[in-house]
This record gives sequence, C-alpha cells and structure tokens, in this order.
Amino acid sequence: VNNIIFLARGEIETFLPGERLAEAKLLMEPYVLIDPEEIADEGAWLQFLEENNPEIIFSGWAMEALPNHVFDLAPNLKYLCYLTGTIRSVVPRSLIENGLLVTNWGSSISRTISECALLLVLGCVRRVSYWTQKMHSEGAWNDGSETHSLFGKRIGIHGFGMIARELIPLIRPFTDRISAFSPGVPQSIFDEFEVSQEGSLEALFSENDVIVELEALTDETKRIVDEKLLRTIPANGVFVNVGRGAVVDEAALARVAKEGRIQIGLDVYEAEPLPKGSPLRGLDNVLLLPHVGGPTTDRRVDAGDHALRNLRSYRNGNELKGVFNLEVYDRST
Amino acid sequence: VNNIIFLARGEIETFLPGERLAEAKLLMEPYVLIDPEEIADEGAWLQFLEENNPEIIFSGWAMEALPNHVFDLAPNLKYLCYLTGTIRSVVPRSLIENGLLVTNWGSSISRTISECALLLVLGCVRRVSYWTQKMHSEGAWNDGSETHSLFGKRIGIHGFGMIARELIPLIRPFTDRISAFSPGVPQSIFDEFEVSQEGSLEALFSENDVIVELEALTDETKRIVDEKLLRTIPANGVFVNVGRGAVVDEAALARVAKEGRIQIGLDVYEAEPLPKGSPLRGLDNVLLLPHVGGPTTDRRVDAGDHALRNLRSYRNGNELKGVFNLEVYDRST
Repeated sequence: VNNIIFLARGEIETFLPGERLAEAKLLMEPYVLIDPEEIADEGAWLQFLEENNPEIIFSGWAMEALPNHVFDLAPNLKYLCYLTGTIRSVVPRSLIENGLLVTNWGSSISRTISECALLLVLGCVRRVSYWTQKMHSEGAWNDGSETHSLFGKRIGIHGFGMIARELIPLIRPFTDRISAFSPGVPQSIFDEFEVSQEGSLEALFSENDVIVELEALTDETKRIVDEKLLRTIPANGVFVNVGRGAVVDEAALARVAKEGRIQIGLDVYEAEPLPKGSPLRGLDNVLLLPHVGGPTTDRRVDAGDHALRNLRSYRNGNELKGVFNLEVYDRST
Repeated sequence: VNNIIFLARGEIETFLPGERLAEAKLLMEPYVLIDPEEIADEGAWLQFLEENNPEIIFSGWAMEALPNHVFDLAPNLKYLCYLTGTIRSVVPRSLIENGLLVTNWGSSISRTISECALLLVLGCVRRVSYWTQKMHSEGAWNDGSETHSLFGKRIGIHGFGMIARELIPLIRPFTDRISAFSPGVPQSIFDEFEVSQEGSLEALFSENDVIVELEALTDETKRIVDEKLLRTIPANGVFVNVGRGAVVDEAALARVAKEGRIQIGLDVYEAEPLPKGSPLRGLDNVLLLPHVGGPTTDRRVDAGDHALRNLRSYRNGNELKGVFNLEVYDRST
C-alpha cells in the first residue's frame, strides 16, 4: 500500500509553500508523489491506483476522476483529501454513499470571498464604477452630487453560510444593523453572530439599504431573486452578488440596473464568462469583477494549511473539518 | 445680546435633521436665526454682528468671515461653534490669539475618510480600476492572472492622526501587521491602537505591502513622498492617498504609476480639480476618486451631533472637543 500525493507543480508551489510539502509527505507515509502530467490517460490512472492501492489520496484541481468501481481497484481507499473546490466532477456520488471520506478546501477560502463582498459593497456605496469610468475616460471631477457612506446602513444578507459568517466581522465596524434570511440555518447561529433574522426574502430586500447575495444554488433558489424583489430595494440601495449567479434572474437585474436607481456590484453571473454583449456591461452604476472573489492566489496557502490539518486529524483519529457528506455533495455545483 | 445661528437651509437640512435644530435653538437662547442669503454684503454682516453682540455664533460653510476687529463690534463674543471644516478663511489667527474659542467638525468626520481609505486599499489589491475599465469597455473576462487579498498583508500608515486611528478597526479584521510613521505622536497612542512604530519613512515604504498616506501638510512634509521613496514600495504593493495631495510629488507618482509595478489609489491631488490632462488619468493600475472621501452627505449628521455636544458642553462649563488652538490652526490648510 502506497498513499498517493497527486499534485501538479503549480499546486504545490501555491498551496504548499515552505515546509508544507515536507509535512504532507510525513503525514502520507508510505507515499508516492506523482505529477498528473506523468499520467498519460485514464487507463494509466486506473492502473496506477491499482498498483498502489492507497488508503489516502491527496490531490486537487489536476486530479483525474475516480471511477465508480474504484474500490475494486483500490480496496484500501478510505480518504480523499482534496486541496481545492469542485468535487462532483472527480468523485461520483456513489463513492460517498459507500463510505469514502472526502474533504475539500471547505470554508478555508471563505474569507477572501467575504473580502470581495465588502469591496463591492463599499465600491457601490461610493459609486466607484461611475468615478473610475468618468475620471479615466472623460476627465471628470467632483460635481458636488450627494455622497454616501456605509456607516450606519442596514445590511441584509441572503444566505448565511460560511462566507456570510466571515463577512460579519468585516462589516461590523461600519454598522450594527445586520440581518439575514437563510431558511434552514438554526437561530443559534444567528445569535452567535448577533445578526437578526428577516421573516421573508421580501422583507430582506425591502427593509435594507444593502443586500449581499450569498444563497446556495439549488432547484428552489434558482432565479429566486426576480424583478419584483429587485424593485423593492430602496432608492440609492445596493445589491451585491458574490455567491451564485443563477440565484438571480440576470435579465431582470440588467433591466433594473439600466434605470440607475440602485448600485449593483457583481463577481458572479448566470453564464460565465459573462458574454461580451451582456447588457450589464457599460453601465456606470454597475461594478463588475470577473469571478475573482476567491480564493486569491496569495491565500491558496490557507487551503493548504486546512488540508494539512485534516490529514493530521485523520492520522490521529480526530474529527475532520468540512467533510463532504451527501447533503453537502447535493448542494454543491 | 443675541446669539447668532447663521446657517443656510441646506446646512440645516443635512447637518441638523430631525430634532437637532430645535435642540440647537434651546442651547443658543437668546438667539437670532438668519439665513446667510439675507445678509447682502460684508457691511451688512458687520452691522448685524454689532446689533446682536453675540456670545456664541453657530455657523458653517456659508458664514461670512469674522473681521480682525470683531471684538470692537461684538465685545461679548466668546465662542464660534463652526459646523464644518475650513477655519482659516473665516477666522483670522489674531482672534484665536485673543482668546476666541473655536471648534469645527474636528474628528467627527474622520471615519468616513477612513472608509474611503479602506475602499481604495481593497480596490488596489483587487485591481478594480483595471477590471472596471476592461469589463465595461473591452468585454473582458478573468484571464487567470494572479490575484491578491488584503488578509495577512503588512500595512504601513504615514501619519497617525484621527483618520489613521479610525482606520485601525476597519483594517484589523484583515491583518495584525500594522505599523505607522508619524513624528510627534507619542508612543502611548501607538500602544493604545496596537500599532508598531517604523523607525523612518524609508522603512515604512520599503517594509510594507500597503502604504496609506495620511500625513498632515506642513512646510516640512510638502512633497516629502518623493520618487525615491515611491520606488522602494515592493512589487505588487499599494500606495493610497486620502490625506493631502501635496505631501506627494505627484509628477513622480505619475511616472512610477505608468510603469505598472504598483497599484495606486487616490482621492486627493496636488492641484484640485485634477487637471483633465493629468498623466494619472487613463492608467489601469490607478484608482481615482474626485476628493469624495468625506464627510459624505449622509454622515454630515455626525458633524451636527458633534457641534451640539460642544454647545451643550459650553453651556454646562465642560471641556469642548476638537478646540481649534493655535497649533491646530497653524497645521490646518
């Protein structure tokens, strides 16, 4: 039995800098380390699995998919420690049903996305898209128009998962008026973060100055943020989405955007890349980022540290963080 | 003797909304309230001062200047409660020498400028000027280039007055690596804010990832941030100025900006309005705002509350906040 470290050079450099690779090797003993480039095709990958019959695989974006019958090839396999995000494309659901333990970067990357949310919120409140375009292209200067601050504003968050929870300490210095709507999240979590619960999505949108969209994408939440809801955001209000583009009816969002009544900040879209002809482009009340919320390259190390902690916990028989159970699997995209 | 409330309608609406004007009137009894528009010229203003012989004047931007010989006209005058910022254009230095008590908005507006500083810092780290211009004008999308976060970065602040102190709680959630260089500020203040002192301006610039410029403008600090200093900022570093434009050699800043090695965020400039032909315009590593840092219109109310607190303290014989003594007068611009 050899455990498998299956990581590309670029992954090792950015996720496991410094002493981290050495520590990973210790935790993976006995191990083989292989660059995915050395595996020619799926057949070679399956043969490699069979030859080594690993208990643990430590891998990431560059991993080949595990086949449905992986336990026939590698009956010892118990744990996939996955450095990065997307699990569904590399792990069939049946493997989790049959007891394969899987962890990914979990919430270790959440705070970088929260940072992006704060940036978009501040950028909307301060009309950064407008000023960037006017200052650079049109020689503009302060026209004496009304200016706004985030201090004291009412902030409403749709969805209260890990990114929303990491956002709270970033916005707390600006305001105590923070509420959220997130069916299924227990009251104790809201209490812990001192965030009040809105009674409905309608109340969230109509009774806050700033809406931050962070709801998970499911069949129920697809396009749940529709034109009617968007139109209830107060004048000069802000709508920011750093979660999932398809939670919002993007055509409706573009119509509302065009009227200029609210400020909009987006890092995610229904279709990505955002089409060149999207009506969201060219509007000076819309701040656009190209899905760069997180994790940022310089914070991949947080995901590396998270994976190492999980490998250590696995070896010591302790509880792992961010286990990809069936519920999480089915909610992921 | 009548105290004078000398405020424009727009000042009353934005600085003293709600019950604040009524409270001001109570504190100013006996008072006359006059709209500056009703005073035809300087002669009418001096006559008005003489007729009312006020102990207190409550005014702001719209105020006529006090003459050097104001005590001849209004021998009772003791306190000018000034709602807004610039004092030098309305109060000759000699009046402060002769004991006139003057307060202005003091530090009540600092936090809005700190908010702008955080926005520019995050906007630089996340390359918002680049993405805004490319996403809106060129149909761009994520090109896979390296991305950066503020988490864990070293932040160095030049100047440690009220705006810098208000900035600390806003950036603390991102990093504990905060230092400052501000000659004359006692060690106890740095200790209170848990900020380490850099030994020199050179160390501040070369040993931090993000520089926030907040030093006061004096004869000594004029253009103190020169090309040599700017070139010591590490690659991919950030330079943000929300303080005084003339502390920086702007021509040198434009040359450094053009090379694209660092990200730059500016709200203030050597000459304002920023000339249409400024070489800072059109660069995608420079985030430009037109001196809108603060106070924002919606937070003028903080200056109103600050003024009311001072009027109350004056009436009760308590200490006033933000008194404009000769030292502050000489440092102001």
